[in-house]
Amino acid sequence: MVKHHLSDLRGCFADTAAYEAALAQDDPLVYTVASVTPADGDGDLHCGVGLIRPGKIGGEYFMTRGHLHSWRAAAEFYIGLSGEGVMLLEEEATGESRLVELRPNSVVYVPGHTAHRTINVGRTPLTYLGVYPAKAGHDYAAIAKNNFRCVAVERNGKPEMIERNDLLASKGT
Amino acid sequence: MVKHHLSDLRGCFADTAAYEAALAQDDPLVYTVASVTPADGDGDLHCGVGLIRPGKIGGEYFMTRGHLHSWRAAAEFYIGLSGEGVMLLEEEATGESRLVELRPNSVVYVPGHTAHRTINVGRTPLTYLGVYPAKAGHDYAAIAKNNFRCVAVERNGKPEMIERNDLLASKGT
Repeated sequence: MVKHHLSDLRGCFADTAAYEAALAQDDPLVYTVASVTPADGDGDLHCGVGLIRPGKIGGEYFMTRGHLHSWRAAAEFYIGLSGEGVMLLEEEATGESRLVELRPNSVVYVPGHTAHRTINVGRTPLTYLGVYPAKAGHDYAAIAKNNFRCVAVERNGKPEMIERNDLLASKGT
Repeated sequence: MVKHHLSDLRGCFADTAAYEAALAQDDPLVYTVASVTPADGDGDLHCGVGLIRPGKIGGEYFMTRGHLHSWRAAAEFYIGLSGEGVMLLEEEATGESRLVELRPNSVVYVPGHTAHRTINVGRTPLTYLGVYPAKAGHDYAAIAKNNFRCVAVERNGKPEMIERNDLLASKGT
């Protein structure tokens, strides 16, 4: 199982001052991913079991770093197990973004060529599965460089997608 | 959604006399599969949502017809949602068979080149997801011709895998 603490998420949250202030206090576990990788051939599949703890940094919810697949055509099915989540999907070529609910016993389809980040918008741990082609591979570098164009923030008690730049402007940074 | 009634399962249950007797009384719905097929390219995935009702015919539990993938190398992840199930897996080349539990929030990996059948061993509906490469395809013909080598029957209140021929011998057929 891979554990991701707050210190592993530098550059993910829009509000860097809030991030550094939180990190100065504590370095909590934000999420874990356990991978199930039975075989690596063509036609094989892998599965990841994710858990994201509840929390917020500067108005943004606790979330994964997010990734593209190294094999860009590779899709992924996410299946909610418990808790309340959303997924932020961003088409690589166009930047077109959408926020999709991830709930227990329901699926979210992430098409190929789409950056995806999983976000816990509830007050309990969010757990989920992701099933993807064994040959997909994970590309974290593109996200580390450009992050996502949009962020999920709470508005009137519900998650809403807004432009990262609009969030920064509203904070006067 | 595709509905499979008892009359669609001719040839699946070992005890053909029990099957015909049950069918003469009623033709109940045994299982349904709803497919989620967002795209069909390389790297894309499809998903099936299955529901198998509880029941038995001649000592065997209600089950799916079972299939191999047309693209034999294609694997599949099954995810239990509710109820108590098992999966019967039979390697095509060797006939090697095993029975694996399918429970809520847990996964079963079906490797390529492996015939697989889902079986409801509980008293409530069994629901589950199957995620597979979009290009997998379903081959039902091989199963229709040879069926599975083994069957799942209840022994001391638990599902147990035995040779089909042993079940037939025990019934004197």
